[in-house]
Amino acid sequence: MQFEEKDIAYPPVHPGTDRTFIRFYGGEPDLNSIFYSSEEENSPQRIFVTDTNVASLKQMQPFVNFFRGENYSQPKIENGFIGTRGKDVLLILGSGEPFKTIESVLAICKAAIDSNAKRSAVFTGIGGGVITDMTAFAASIFKRGATCELVPTTLLSMVDAAIGGKTGCDFDSYKNMIGSFFPAQKIHIIPSFIQSLPENEYRSGMAEVVKTALLYSKELFEKLASKPEILQNRKDPLVEEMIKICVNAKAAVVEQDLTEKNIRMQLNLGHTFGHALETRAGLGKVSHGDAVAWGIARAAELSKKIGLCTENYVQTVKSALSSFGWETQPMHSALNGKFASEKEAALSLFEAMKKDKKNASNKVRFVLQEDVGETVITEVDEKDVLSVL
Amino acid sequence: MQFEEKDIAYPPVHPGTDRTFIRFYGGEPDLNSIFYSSEEENSPQRIFVTDTNVASLKQMQPFVNFFRGENYSQPKIENGFIGTRGKDVLLILGSGEPFKTIESVLAICKAAIDSNAKRSAVFTGIGGGVITDMTAFAASIFKRGATCELVPTTLLSMVDAAIGGKTGCDFDSYKNMIGSFFPAQKIHIIPSFIQSLPENEYRSGMAEVVKTALLYSKELFEKLASKPEILQNRKDPLVEEMIKICVNAKAAVVEQDLTEKNIRMQLNLGHTFGHALETRAGLGKVSHGDAVAWGIARAAELSKKIGLCTENYVQTVKSALSSFGWETQPMHSALNGKFASEKEAALSLFEAMKKDKKNASNKVRFVLQEDVGETVITEVDEKDVLSVL
Repeated sequence: MQFEEKDIAYPPVHPGTDRTFIRFYGGEPDLNSIFYSSEEENSPQRIFVTDTNVASLKQMQPFVNFFRGENYSQPKIENGFIGTRGKDVLLILGSGEPFKTIESVLAICKAAIDSNAKRSAVFTGIGGGVITDMTAFAASIFKRGATCELVPTTLLSMVDAAIGGKTGCDFDSYKNMIGSFFPAQKIHIIPSFIQSLPENEYRSGMAEVVKTALLYSKELFEKLASKPEILQNRKDPLVEEMIKICVNAKAAVVEQDLTEKNIRMQLNLGHTFGHALETRAGLGKVSHGDAVAWGIARAAELSKKIGLCTENYVQTVKSALSSFGWETQPMHSALNGKFASEKEAALSLFEAMKKDKKNASNKVRFVLQEDVGETVITEVDEKDVLSVL
Repeated sequence: MQFEEKDIAYPPVHPGTDRTFIRFYGGEPDLNSIFYSSEEENSPQRIFVTDTNVASLKQMQPFVNFFRGENYSQPKIENGFIGTRGKDVLLILGSGEPFKTIESVLAICKAAIDSNAKRSAVFTGIGGGVITDMTAFAASIFKRGATCELVPTTLLSMVDAAIGGKTGCDFDSYKNMIGSFFPAQKIHIIPSFIQSLPENEYRSGMAEVVKTALLYSKELFEKLASKPEILQNRKDPLVEEMIKICVNAKAAVVEQDLTEKNIRMQLNLGHTFGHALETRAGLGKVSHGDAVAWGIARAAELSKKIGLCTENYVQTVKSALSSFGWETQPMHSALNGKFASEKEAALSLFEAMKKDKKNASNKVRFVLQEDVGETVITEVDEKDVLSVL
């Protein structure tokens, strides 16, 4: 076979943006003051995307009502609502994981097309991780890449989902099976949104906070461990402080490794166990945060099992998690009655881990710790994994 | 409103790959010799994608038959065919623009999921621009980015569509409305595929060849102008030569400007007029190549109208285009009977140009020439545009 070769080398190209501006807002700003306080002739067209839950929040009404028109008792805030405000558009999608579909992503693109959006339009997602992931995904594929801004409204999306450029939606019953890396140009963090979160969503976000503290801030971990009542008191100044610490920590990681080739993998602490639990319990039966918290306890036990850490570390971690109300025992209660025996449950969890998209081979890779702030990534044998389940 | 700010700066991240290897194959290699000559234990899993037309080509049979299994009189080569060969998969989609849909792109992702593909899988598109654009788009969103290789089988995709990382599909009746920039890791160019192209597809590719020559190779343009019979003789050595020249020229452009922020826009010579004609004639009524060739003639007239070039340039361009059989007069025959008057047709074409996704504002930007190889990009007034229609 005869052939000749040449190659094309590309200079740096940034998907999305080469720099994400993050703004932390004190007090209780409303979105009008953020997006419409200095209306300029040349402000970009915006495609706002949110969900029925967020659009119904009291603090969202001054913003949403503009898009509902003068007579805003109608139309209702429901899935598929599209309102306009000058050249801008607000699209309201259904709320929650079942709406994290390619159809929702295409509905965002369709709203943009119908309003004659150009590449210069700014897709602006206001919501939890489902909305921010999908809005950013739509921005990344619309005309091969529009601009994206995000307003995370849950603790989880403020400290984790919205930071770091991962976009996507579920597909064919797999979580986040399609998507892209496409960092937002601006992220607006408004901690006051947290006051209106349901208990389970706040707790879910808290698991990622504890995870981030274990990875990158011993000081924050110790503060949290000594103050479990923060779960009941969201006005505690520690709440705003911990959000900033977590955002800064995650920013430092994704700055170095946007596409998860190396250190960004650390952020999966507790997630290999956690995802397996979510899958085996049935998607939605256990919250992501509860699953991750349980996974962190299992990862601590596994670290000890393979000789990485002391019993003291394991007890410190488990006692902090327990004080927040999370389960730390080998068999999570969400699996009760689902398997003939604990052994069968453990084997099933292990099978699920092997299928996780983050595993490149048949071995299972774990993020483990030698101590708070001292993290290692390593592959572990099946028998050691089963011994902690 | 109180706020604090920070930002995340990202080091270079390459969507797809930072380097595309292009291999030109002489003779008549079959795909088995390219992909299966040195089967290694650790060769990556491949998701091959092609269409019913290409899969039916005589030279494709040795390759396709492996995926059809032992008894290959069945199953038939039809839209939706999926065959396997070890861990590899071949998916055959319907042929042509009507299949350039998000449903086809998702069918590629689904075939990958069903074969347990990991991020390390190589999506390999074999076909014209429709197949290579969609396969690369699917690769770009599968698990946030798998690997892509392309085997362009038409003249158009060899010299244009497959080179340069633009991926996508049509959506909501708009061409290439969604997609991404995601360069392929390898592009395999097999000029012998050209021998089996239908006349109209060969001619369509030839328009992009003439365009590339006008932009970057006066020598090639003069050779082509003196040899219009190349349209009837695809075995002429000039065919392989012109493919290499065009690939190299396009590679040089996308190396400098992958995401079309500046010089890559030159490649739209003839396309602003051409796209408007395609839209107003009705998608599919006039081939992309015929529309672009006509657009190049209109761009030459417009260049003269605004004082950029000489009458001599206009005549050189139009006479070369005519000798290949393309229309060069103001009103293309594909618009006959569609409008009440030529004036109305001209106004309608201008409206279509204003909506083209490549225009950032309401003004219309054109790629024009002062002479062969001397290109300028400029915005032109409506009355000047209408004067050449």
